Amino acid sequence: MNLPRRVKLIDVGPRDGLQNEKQPVPAAVKVELVHRLQDAGLNEIEVTSFVSPKWVPQMADNAEVMAGIHRQPDVRYSVLTPNLQGFEAALKTKPDEIVVFGAASEAFSQKNINCSIEESIERFAPVVKAARDAGIAVRGAMSCTVGCPYEGEIAPERVGYLAGLMKSIGIQRVDVADTIGVGTPRKVQAAIEATLRHYALNDVSGHFHDTYGQALVNTLAALQVGVWNFQSSVAGLGGCPYAKGATGNVATEDVVYMLQGMGIETGIHLDKLIDAGVFISNALGRQPNSLVSRAVLNKRAV
Amino acid sequence: MNLPRRVKLIDVGPRDGLQNEKQPVPAAVKVELVHRLQDAGLNEIEVTSFVSPKWVPQMADNAEVMAGIHRQPDVRYSVLTPNLQGFEAALKTKPDEIVVFGAASEAFSQKNINCSIEESIERFAPVVKAARDAGIAVRGAMSCTVGCPYEGEIAPERVGYLAGLMKSIGIQRVDVADTIGVGTPRKVQAAIEATLRHYALNDVSGHFHDTYGQALVNTLAALQVGVWNFQSSVAGLGGCPYAKGATGNVATEDVVYMLQGMGIETGIHLDKLIDAGVFISNALGRQPNSLVSRAVLNKRAV
Repeated sequence: MNLPRRVKLIDVGPRDGLQNEKQPVPAAVKVELVHRLQDAGLNEIEVTSFVSPKWVPQMADNAEVMAGIHRQPDVRYSVLTPNLQGFEAALKTKPDEIVVFGAASEAFSQKNINCSIEESIERFAPVVKAARDAGIAVRGAMSCTVGCPYEGEIAPERVGYLAGLMKSIGIQRVDVADTIGVGTPRKVQAAIEATLRHYALNDVSGHFHDTYGQALVNTLAALQVGVWNFQSSVAGLGGCPYAKGATGNVATEDVVYMLQGMGIETGIHLDKLIDAGVFISNALGRQPNSLVSRAVLNKRAV
Repeated sequence: MNLPRRVKLIDVGPRDGLQNEKQPVPAAVKVELVHRLQDAGLNEIEVTSFVSPKWVPQMADNAEVMAGIHRQPDVRYSVLTPNLQGFEAALKTKPDEIVVFGAASEAFSQKNINCSIEESIERFAPVVKAARDAGIAVRGAMSCTVGCPYEGEIAPERVGYLAGLMKSIGIQRVDVADTIGVGTPRKVQAAIEATLRHYALNDVSGHFHDTYGQALVNTLAALQVGVWNFQSSVAGLGGCPYAKGATGNVATEDVVYMLQGMGIETGIHLDKLIDAGVFISNALGRQPNSLVSRAVLNKRAV
């Protein structure tokens, strides 16, 4: 198997994870989670979002969380900014990177952000420009790149089309996200290959949900086409907003275990990562949603 | 990705699964499970074992279960037979195949069956001969081919050694089992490659446990070296005898979903399979241990 020798993981637990948790989490706990993640060796963390607290009350403490972090020079802290107002609020907290988003599915774009794919890109253009002018990196999260809860399967051409639009407004790198976790290896590779017509391998990351248990196998499929950046969520934080009780983000622990088992360098200390997952899961009053965490905790208990 | 065009799944739920369940299951429920599996398109089912009921009370109803099945001509019914006494009892129930077992780990062999690897092979030799003389196929289950709960990592050479011993006594095909689910793709491929020095590709099956969430990714890795026979367990029946509450056998549902998503033919009807998993899980008073089942049941509920 010809695979990358190292992988960079972007932990999206504090933002993408906790945003989907019903239970509110105090800012101090979020800050502690970020600290534990960076102590475990994560060097990219999606911290929070600057969205209206009317829509996402879970992230209303965004500035407080950003201010509370003892930053490490080798860690990149990113925040989600859907519009200029959010970007300006984010700017004051000095993020290293902002994240904007778009869907490969027209129906999802309409239902999720109430505008067409093209309109969403037009709206993001000034945000991207403002970020680039301020010397801040920009990542584009491409959702529904394999399947959509409203449209079903999404053709790779739609993913390529969205990637091209993102490239055209200056977005520097993109995530290929299987938002509802329906993807399987060949479909995921097709979505990535469509993206690679617009972005270099170094600028493409995989973001796979484990709703149907396929996240790791899709990660391996992505590795096999050369992708070496991936998003994942400590303790599998996040659930799936489209199916009650279903699994969403793949657990960072499970990805790290697989990569380490294959001799791929991640820079991550698995035991510390598991402890970070236990910490936040305790705060949420439940068990980590990670089979690796469960197996290791079982072994530790013996 | 160069992958086999079709895959044969051997459902081990009725035997390997239910043997590890604490709760006793009535023979009629087991028979119904076998019927539901064959209706869903499984054409190989590990039905029961002929072991002393003192050791494995869960399988004391072996003859009753075998007698209760309305057999289909295209389905292979296999049973576990650890010794001649068990084989003779099994023979009366007309199995299509018997299964014997051995470990790639010396410590596991000692702790599990109280003899060395070589001694276990010597004990199985007359069982294999009797089966072959009676025209019954013989499969050898090779456990701990990647890791062992007592020894840790197992070198591929140990797997090759066991495969060679099995071949020498006339065992026709073998399973490469990751009994404690610690394997990752490259390690699993190495275990398979060691086996392929003694057995042809058509005679090797993969048996991966999901304890660390790696079963599907290991299945893909095995497919990539040409393996096209796999064992799995409907509803993830079985748990893990070496870690309380941990996951054991990969759920057949999850394997089928992945294979179908990649366009690989299995002959299995996923919805009927999910229903079979719900049936046995209801009998056990719990939810199916399959993410695909959970996701599909969520969708059905909407």
